[in-house]
Amino acid sequence: MSAVRRPPYYLGIDLGGTNIKSGVVDDAGQSCSSVSLKTQATLGPDVGLETLAEAARRAVKASGLDWKEIVAVGLGSPGTMDIEAGMLLEPPNLPGWDNLPIRQRLADLLDKPTVLQNDANAAAYGEFWAGAGRDAKSLGLFTLGTGIGCGIIDHGRIIVGRHSNGAECGHMIIQMENARQCSCGAYGHLEAYASATALVKRANEALDEGISSRLHEVRGKGLLTSRAIAEAAESGDALARRLMRETARYLAVGAVNLMNTIDPDMILFGGGMIAAGTTLLNDIRGDIQSLAFPIPAARTVIEYAALGGDAGYIGAAGCARLMYGTSGPE
Amino acid sequence: MSAVRRPPYYLGIDLGGTNIKSGVVDDAGQSCSSVSLKTQATLGPDVGLETLAEAARRAVKASGLDWKEIVAVGLGSPGTMDIEAGMLLEPPNLPGWDNLPIRQRLADLLDKPTVLQNDANAAAYGEFWAGAGRDAKSLGLFTLGTGIGCGIIDHGRIIVGRHSNGAECGHMIIQMENARQCSCGAYGHLEAYASATALVKRANEALDEGISSRLHEVRGKGLLTSRAIAEAAESGDALARRLMRETARYLAVGAVNLMNTIDPDMILFGGGMIAAGTTLLNDIRGDIQSLAFPIPAARTVIEYAALGGDAGYIGAAGCARLMYGTSGPE
Repeated sequence: MSAVRRPPYYLGIDLGGTNIKSGVVDDAGQSCSSVSLKTQATLGPDVGLETLAEAARRAVKASGLDWKEIVAVGLGSPGTMDIEAGMLLEPPNLPGWDNLPIRQRLADLLDKPTVLQNDANAAAYGEFWAGAGRDAKSLGLFTLGTGIGCGIIDHGRIIVGRHSNGAECGHMIIQMENARQCSCGAYGHLEAYASATALVKRANEALDEGISSRLHEVRGKGLLTSRAIAEAAESGDALARRLMRETARYLAVGAVNLMNTIDPDMILFGGGMIAAGTTLLNDIRGDIQSLAFPIPAARTVIEYAALGGDAGYIGAAGCARLMYGTSGPE
Repeated sequence: MSAVRRPPYYLGIDLGGTNIKSGVVDDAGQSCSSVSLKTQATLGPDVGLETLAEAARRAVKASGLDWKEIVAVGLGSPGTMDIEAGMLLEPPNLPGWDNLPIRQRLADLLDKPTVLQNDANAAAYGEFWAGAGRDAKSLGLFTLGTGIGCGIIDHGRIIVGRHSNGAECGHMIIQMENARQCSCGAYGHLEAYASATALVKRANEALDEGISSRLHEVRGKGLLTSRAIAEAAESGDALARRLMRETARYLAVGAVNLMNTIDPDMILFGGGMIAAGTTLLNDIRGDIQSLAFPIPAARTVIEYAALGGDAGYIGAAGCARLMYGTSGPE
């Protein structure tokens, strides 16, 4: 927030099952403010929409700008949705928000042109526009958390897909036989192997088998998280190290499948799990080297995302700029 | 070739390891002629380039058009290549053609603006422009033969990728553990499970295990091909039926991974194996229904390709039209 602001301005909102984050973003992708409110998803869509609007108003106020200086609003939301129609369909993390024309409802509340985008796509666009991918022409972002989100940008365009199902790469099938079950109910998906939830589950299985590890003590205290496993690996625990190595390999498989489909300049990993630090990233890079074809292996940049929890609202603001901006894409 | 020809005209060439196919294509994607010559790849690139030029001249002659009526030339070639630079790098099926500036060499020989494209991408563009995908906005094509080729068209753009490695989906990893080895040397790729070669290999393994089947007799005569296996399945042979069902499931996994990445309107299957007919197609459709998310499962059209062996040169001509055409894309 040190650089000079470049008008015009856009408002981005990142709607999550737990929190709503909103911020004003300038024409260069620079954040001018950010605020966070509880979603209170279970209170239903009317309360939710009012909370979205309140987050928007507070973000503009915090930026010191006038409401009329905001050109348009971008909303990133978890799925399922019909992006073109601006509708939420059956979002699993927003119970009761089914078949909600959220784009129009929010546009009416805020009296601004509004665009809807999938939250993971918005985050990928944020990194592309103003984050780790700002020098890339195309990228794929895997967001590693409870699940695995994914967004793909190809030559400045978000791969939305024809049924708003583009870049659901957390649900690519990487194992057909004896496969783990995914949170979505299907089997063999990347998310079922490499999400933070899957990592903890694999750790629990290994501990249940009686494998010696300091993670037994961690689990005994109720502290067995992906973060704790990564820390145990860093401090030399053999089981934790094996679990993290396997995680890297699964993520490399996901990355290579994306490289053999979209072949982007860059693959980014974001989300809570990248707190594991450079060991995980370097392990992923090594496995990609051994699994990918030589030229993409040598040239595709593999990095961590740079915007953290701000990628969603920054990218959503970028989507508003793509549709309603006066400057056109970079 | 019954409809009225729509000028201007483009020349397409499909370069294969065994045959070169070339034809003149009108502005609507309609073939006006086609000729086929032996590639004689082992005689090296000088002979090969002259053969490409000869195929081009014969195709124009066969069309009854004058050479000067051809606006531009498109060449579809097997990889590896640098599409943007117009270079072949190390094409496995064209030994000795390494690091060949094939686009410029052919342009010089023919004195026409020339574009280079990956052969599978060209075939996908052919189906998109003038074949089974002519009403689609986006599609993925899997070409099932010795290997598995793939091409992806998204909103009229070919997904070439940043290192000419886009749409190499035959090499997506669908099995991480106890995986079959692919012709490329790596493990667990779609091609290692579902190509015609892989089908015959799986049949041989089952026969070696002594499983009862009329395929023993077929093999004894040296006639164990993917076609023969499909025919045995149609006539009720239990092993052949099982092998074809497994093939359908592998192909469905590949299709679903593409649906969860690009989410196209349509997935097409082409190549020699589709001679297996509607049973294979319906099995693939059924497996996609059970593996994909409900909305894309319900809406994505799953079909066989329509242009057969003409897709490559028609699509290559279409690529020439995209770059040098006067009418612009459809």
